[in-house]
Amino acid sequence: MKVSIAHLGPIGTNSETAAIAYANWLAQNRQQEATFFPCSSIAMTLDALAQNKVDLAVVPVENSIEGTVTITLDRLWQLEKLKIIQALVLPISHALLSCNSALEEITTVYSHPQALAQCQNWLEKFLPSVKLVAINSTTEALPYLKDDLKAAAISSPKASPLYQIPILCNDIGDYTDNCTRFWILSSTASNSGSYLSLAFSLPQNAPGALVKPLQVFARRGINMSKIESRPTKRLLGEYIFFIDLEGNLQHSSVTAALTELSQYTEQLKIFGSYELLKLN
Amino acid sequence: MKVSIAHLGPIGTNSETAAIAYANWLAQNRQQEATFFPCSSIAMTLDALAQNKVDLAVVPVENSIEGTVTITLDRLWQLEKLKIIQALVLPISHALLSCNSALEEITTVYSHPQALAQCQNWLEKFLPSVKLVAINSTTEALPYLKDDLKAAAISSPKASPLYQIPILCNDIGDYTDNCTRFWILSSTASNSGSYLSLAFSLPQNAPGALVKPLQVFARRGINMSKIESRPTKRLLGEYIFFIDLEGNLQHSSVTAALTELSQYTEQLKIFGSYELLKLN
Repeated sequence: MKVSIAHLGPIGTNSETAAIAYANWLAQNRQQEATFFPCSSIAMTLDALAQNKVDLAVVPVENSIEGTVTITLDRLWQLEKLKIIQALVLPISHALLSCNSALEEITTVYSHPQALAQCQNWLEKFLPSVKLVAINSTTEALPYLKDDLKAAAISSPKASPLYQIPILCNDIGDYTDNCTRFWILSSTASNSGSYLSLAFSLPQNAPGALVKPLQVFARRGINMSKIESRPTKRLLGEYIFFIDLEGNLQHSSVTAALTELSQYTEQLKIFGSYELLKLN
Repeated sequence: MKVSIAHLGPIGTNSETAAIAYANWLAQNRQQEATFFPCSSIAMTLDALAQNKVDLAVVPVENSIEGTVTITLDRLWQLEKLKIIQALVLPISHALLSCNSALEEITTVYSHPQALAQCQNWLEKFLPSVKLVAINSTTEALPYLKDDLKAAAISSPKASPLYQIPILCNDIGDYTDNCTRFWILSSTASNSGSYLSLAFSLPQNAPGALVKPLQVFARRGINMSKIESRPTKRLLGEYIFFIDLEGNLQHSSVTAALTELSQYTEQLKIFGSYELLKLN
């Protein structure tokens, strides 16, 4: 039976590239075939998995330039039972696509907010008075560019042949070594691997409450590779902490730390442990 | 001599409201008069202070719904010698302003990305197919709305009389209790107050390196009220950590912790200690 994979669409997005990379890995290593289920937002990609419409979901977590994809963390916290089973890292390249070959005639540039942010220096330099329009994905605007010669979109260069929109400028990202980490999620945990992700909120009105949860890991020598705070959206200064640890759910020190951690947290969600996939 | 205060402009932004609130506090408590220096982006607001064009800068740091204003942290890390001398919290209210009184005729909505994000549920419900355009501030688009009846902007309701643009819908934010914390920065530190903010990067290729810096504070019972990671923009998985502590630079336990901390960090920036201003 084929495995269905939800991702941010339409075709040609970086999320689709990540979904295809994972499908190739599945074909080579598990002899499984995949089908794709493009969704119109990152939130809807996670919703599709939570509603059992698909077997897996691939979502961006963080970019090396712009940082955390906050909608991914916020939605994951809201949903139930989603587990991370793999991570993968993709190099990201941004091109300016347009049916107009005169850069000075461009008045509007469309893209996903992360892509706009990753090209902001280039945009300020070469298109300082252009209107930037944030849309759901890097390719959503491409079908409309044929009818609007004053518009351009920031997309992956591989979207150019897919939509038959020429590349006006290549490599417009502000930094080299631009890459994005993606998570592959399922409703069944893998529990193996080198990384463990979790999130927790703290009891209300408990100043000093963050020290104890962090000591739980520090005392056992378990390293945090990332810590991120997101607002609870209830009260300013109240956070949900998202932590990536080095370890997995088969390590007794990790499971002991998690048991102790649950005493200090208000709500604790363990998103599972997983491997970072090496792609060829 | 008057104190000059840089803020994100033009008039009517929430940053201007914060700057005015601080100017009123200065008038009442320090008998100082202020002048205002509106800037066209948050980055340029901080730059104005770093270049000694102004005495103070007021910038948003975090919102209770959307979280950290990442450009503030990223720019503060890049600049030298800027110190936080006060913090203040303002309630935020979002209204839809337009010269058109028919909501169904609106095709484009302009605002700052934070404001667009704080109203995303309302926008999905009432204007699902509208084009969202991210601009530098909540009021930048207002002067153009008189010529474009299909456009609206999300702004503070107080911007309506300033620009003579009617309020089409009031209270369109997705959450009640929406508020934003602002920092007031100077080139001279205050060193007093209840909060201390700092940021550090860690030596490269040092897995496990975050445990020790956090233990420095935990061991001394110094509470972290916030921890945020931002990418170094060099390498995925390499972060600058922004930490808010409870304490100030006159506490010997705090200064001892900072001395020890500097042994474990690659670069350490102390933004000063400060009070959270209570506004009447």
